[in-house]
Amino acid sequence: MSLTIVGTIAFDSIKTPFGKADKVIGGAATYTAWAASYLYDQIQLVSIIGDDWPSSEIDKMKARGIDLSGVNVVENGRSFFWEGEYDQNLIDRTTLTTELNVLEDFDPVLPEEYKNSRFLMLGNLTPQIQLKVMEQMKNRPAFVAMDTMNFWIDIARDDLESAIRQVDLLSINDEEARLLSGKYNLVEAAESIMEYGIRYLIIKKGEHGALLFGENKMFFAPALPLSSIIDPTGAGDSFAGGLMGYLASQPTIDFKTMKKGLIYGAVMGSFCVEDFSLQRLQNLDVTVIQNRVDDLIELSSIE
Amino acid sequence: MSLTIVGTIAFDSIKTPFGKADKVIGGAATYTAWAASYLYDQIQLVSIIGDDWPSSEIDKMKARGIDLSGVNVVENGRSFFWEGEYDQNLIDRTTLTTELNVLEDFDPVLPEEYKNSRFLMLGNLTPQIQLKVMEQMKNRPAFVAMDTMNFWIDIARDDLESAIRQVDLLSINDEEARLLSGKYNLVEAAESIMEYGIRYLIIKKGEHGALLFGENKMFFAPALPLSSIIDPTGAGDSFAGGLMGYLASQPTIDFKTMKKGLIYGAVMGSFCVEDFSLQRLQNLDVTVIQNRVDDLIELSSIE
Repeated sequence: MSLTIVGTIAFDSIKTPFGKADKVIGGAATYTAWAASYLYDQIQLVSIIGDDWPSSEIDKMKARGIDLSGVNVVENGRSFFWEGEYDQNLIDRTTLTTELNVLEDFDPVLPEEYKNSRFLMLGNLTPQIQLKVMEQMKNRPAFVAMDTMNFWIDIARDDLESAIRQVDLLSINDEEARLLSGKYNLVEAAESIMEYGIRYLIIKKGEHGALLFGENKMFFAPALPLSSIIDPTGAGDSFAGGLMGYLASQPTIDFKTMKKGLIYGAVMGSFCVEDFSLQRLQNLDVTVIQNRVDDLIELSSIE
Repeated sequence: MSLTIVGTIAFDSIKTPFGKADKVIGGAATYTAWAASYLYDQIQLVSIIGDDWPSSEIDKMKARGIDLSGVNVVENGRSFFWEGEYDQNLIDRTTLTTELNVLEDFDPVLPEEYKNSRFLMLGNLTPQIQLKVMEQMKNRPAFVAMDTMNFWIDIARDDLESAIRQVDLLSINDEEARLLSGKYNLVEAAESIMEYGIRYLIIKKGEHGALLFGENKMFFAPALPLSSIIDPTGAGDSFAGGLMGYLASQPTIDFKTMKKGLIYGAVMGSFCVEDFSLQRLQNLDVTVIQNRVDDLIELSSIE
């Protein structure tokens, strides 16, 4: 009965029209785990870092009950580093630096107690690594979700497709959905992607919300219009965290659970973008989150 | 007890990635009136056309009960003509030809029976014309809505602001909201635009839905994801028609009525884009519309 999250833990240097942050903590697994931790309490992380990673950050995660025994700390290794700059629209971004560092040799080995996880979130990594993690599970988890990116669709499509065929949920953005399916129209793209045999597909559209497909139904979760967006880095990963944290807290997964999960995802994404790095996500409580969930439901409620 | 719609009636030549249509009927008032006509039956049109306008189209509108006594037919005049081409994304478009023709001398004179309209929709025209129409009303209508475009924000801001201050609802797209307010963030833009003293503001985001602001509340109506979009021309005007037709059918206007109005607007916009020109809008019935309203409400319903 746990949620295992596999993904990067990184340092980020970020410039947006509203400021910059130098070598701050980031990484998909970091955002996902923090976001999920407000909704579910049995979270296990699989990742790799160097010993340059601040022990204070490790302590903060442990204090939230996040199990880090699956995080490989490489002695004298340097953590993955990404540097990027956002345009005025806060959507388009330019990567200035990518230093894989310890991530280059990431060969995830799951601790025994992770191998019976009920929920598994495969963050954006090489499809080979995603496949390797699934192979190590003793029992097929009740629910497996994965993210990916354009790069893997371009250079590792075969492995990627093998991975997709094994998961319950693929969660990608609109650009990735178009590239993966070869269809520009998102409804057509979704129909094509569902043919991999997945139960659910989420197409994230950033500030324009997210679409859920599955069970021959469609649901749209809006993004909360915010008066201040500081840094979009990690929004998609926080979305995944809110979604998976909510799902893991539920006894069964059906379309209704998924819909609610998208709302929690959108809410955690909305907190993420209100500040640089993990600054907002590390300072939340359940009441603040629940209020925003109510606001977001109210935003599209016709009654 | 009527809805007066002021706007252009035009010929359009349109090219999209899915085909082209040469010199077909178009114009904001045409789309708005057709969309509204399924929801409300006392519609009065104010516009100007040349005698090149097909009498069959006039007959079709009359057959739907649309009053055309406010449409000035100029003998030996040529109707307004617009030619444009859409990009692959069906959002960006290039204007190839604009022939104002009779529109150049448009000086609207309202028939007596129009001057007590309860609802007034001022389509995108010069702010001077929009002001002139409002001046001719005998009683201030219960509800006045207006549209505008970047061009008037750029070259006729003073008159435009005078017009905006007199209406209940301004309905514009995201780009126009940003230009009018000087704010990129749409929540900030909305706060700034509300200071004109309008009751409601709608910011249309095309395929990404529409935001409603007013009464210190916010509502988001998604656009229905469609598997086939043929031509986006007229979508915003059809949205206005669905909205105003619905509002005109209601005894009072409050935030709840407005929310429902946005749904009807989004639905009429979704029909519009499924074919070139008025082809889809001219072939609807109340059941088909109501089913799609239900679908759209269901799309964002969390229950």
